[in-house]
Amino acid sequence: MNELTLQDVRDALARIQPHITRTPVLTSARLDELSGCRLFFKCENFQKTGAFKARGATNAVLSLTAEQGARGVATHSSGNHAAALARAAALRGIPAYVVMPRTASAFKVAAVERYGGEIIFCEPTHAAREAAASLIVRETGACLVHPFNDPRVIAGQATAALELLGEAPDLDVVFSPVGGGGLLAGTALVVSALRPGARVFGGEPEGAADTARSLEAGTRTPVDRPASVADGLLAFVGDLTFPIIREKVSGVVTVAEAEILRAMMLLIEVMKIAIEPSGAVGYAALSKRSSDFKGLRVGVILSGGNMDLAGIPWASSRPAP
Amino acid sequence: MNELTLQDVRDALARIQPHITRTPVLTSARLDELSGCRLFFKCENFQKTGAFKARGATNAVLSLTAEQGARGVATHSSGNHAAALARAAALRGIPAYVVMPRTASAFKVAAVERYGGEIIFCEPTHAAREAAASLIVRETGACLVHPFNDPRVIAGQATAALELLGEAPDLDVVFSPVGGGGLLAGTALVVSALRPGARVFGGEPEGAADTARSLEAGTRTPVDRPASVADGLLAFVGDLTFPIIREKVSGVVTVAEAEILRAMMLLIEVMKIAIEPSGAVGYAALSKRSSDFKGLRVGVILSGGNMDLAGIPWASSRPAP
Repeated sequence: MNELTLQDVRDALARIQPHITRTPVLTSARLDELSGCRLFFKCENFQKTGAFKARGATNAVLSLTAEQGARGVATHSSGNHAAALARAAALRGIPAYVVMPRTASAFKVAAVERYGGEIIFCEPTHAAREAAASLIVRETGACLVHPFNDPRVIAGQATAALELLGEAPDLDVVFSPVGGGGLLAGTALVVSALRPGARVFGGEPEGAADTARSLEAGTRTPVDRPASVADGLLAFVGDLTFPIIREKVSGVVTVAEAEILRAMMLLIEVMKIAIEPSGAVGYAALSKRSSDFKGLRVGVILSGGNMDLAGIPWASSRPAP
Repeated sequence: MNELTLQDVRDALARIQPHITRTPVLTSARLDELSGCRLFFKCENFQKTGAFKARGATNAVLSLTAEQGARGVATHSSGNHAAALARAAALRGIPAYVVMPRTASAFKVAAVERYGGEIIFCEPTHAAREAAASLIVRETGACLVHPFNDPRVIAGQATAALELLGEAPDLDVVFSPVGGGGLLAGTALVVSALRPGARVFGGEPEGAADTARSLEAGTRTPVDRPASVADGLLAFVGDLTFPIIREKVSGVVTVAEAEILRAMMLLIEVMKIAIEPSGAVGYAALSKRSSDFKGLRVGVILSGGNMDLAGIPWASSRPAP
């Protein structure tokens, strides 16, 4: 595979633009005051399907040839990528097969069903998911669209940063959450190309800090049993995303569960927007290290807004009034 | 007092415009589909202080003469009006005295403190609040700004509907929550003047349905011990607001607690915006009666977004997936 370039990202944006939302870049005097920075929030919570994942999935699906597309697409991710892939497939009128563990929350199942995804339930083990996905691909000839370790997906996710720099061209720093690394790698690709002096940081839950650990070790290093309220960020950084991150990202800041929930609650209370825990992790990381960026212009990607209102331990971590 | 006119509302908007947010009018294909209507949401959750109350309080404070203003303003409302009045006073550099029951939530106290309001705590009875407020007014000469029963406040709240009709001029119906009636009366004033064929409805919690009851009786009729999760709508409709409502409003739809929470959760989950229970009551009322408005263009005022995240019984009323 050739190396991804800014042109690939521009092509992706042209391809997906009719089908996605150009999400707003919001600011808040109160959050500026709290951080000492000038913050520019790229609000992917307002993206189609409620998360940036619509960008990468749509780019991947629209990049398929007619022949490939006709056989449909498949994934065994059960989060925002699954809903995004189902929606993208529906745009092309092709099937999307989504393998989900039978223990998946009603909230996640409903999101995939809403966009017409065909759900295949399996036992809640990694092996069962891979086996079920392989079977589907063999039976249908569907194209497996990986949630992050795919150049078309990385180029799609990168379009969020392209739009952000279009509206706030003179950023000094950009923060993004990191799970499997598609969004962070794509962001770093765009920022390093368009604004080489700016630094890009990832935010990662302490309980799933494989990317921070991998950067320290210089090689991809998983963590045992990743766990966090930020359930969109549990994946192990990919072998396509990690090299980009290692080359172009200035660092990954890890954050505790309480820091994630506090960031999420501040965003909800001050900005009056819905944010899921994973979506707040870039802001949590910036908040933790804001003293390093005093007076600077900082872009923060808020990656998703699919709050499962029944599932969040609100009361335990209220910010002080 | 002379009757309020559209010109008063236009004057109010000119007066407050530099100090308030022109909030967006958002739409949602999914909520349109659920209701069968074409919905236009006026998002006052994004208003300064998180609620439409900033409009009326700012108009009242900026309408004071220099001499009146110098003595400050006072209120014994402890909700969004108190924070809005504190902010409006700060804009003029004058004191705002806010009488609050000592049992008020930390959330509400913090909101008033944030804008520099001077809080006077009292016993949690209506008599104690009135007494404390009277004392403050006697001691300081401050001007008492009522949260709704004041023509300057009604004219200010009416500016939300003026902006809404500016962006969606051909509405057939407009829904607004009703507590003391400032927002509903102001909305009806504007809609009846600018679009006489359109109908205006209020949404009111069943547990605080004094306005619905008053309309039935033809005269202001309180309810005993009003109670609702929509804590911004417990006030008894005012003697200035009720006549406007009786003359210009087509009806008040009462909604159960579960209907309010379901509406709130739908708005959060689908539109990715923060909404407080009171802010969702207009939408809850429209949802309950949507079959009466099939195919029509319906404006819905979402009046506030100050969600107290620790205080809402989420899990008990999840919408079906």
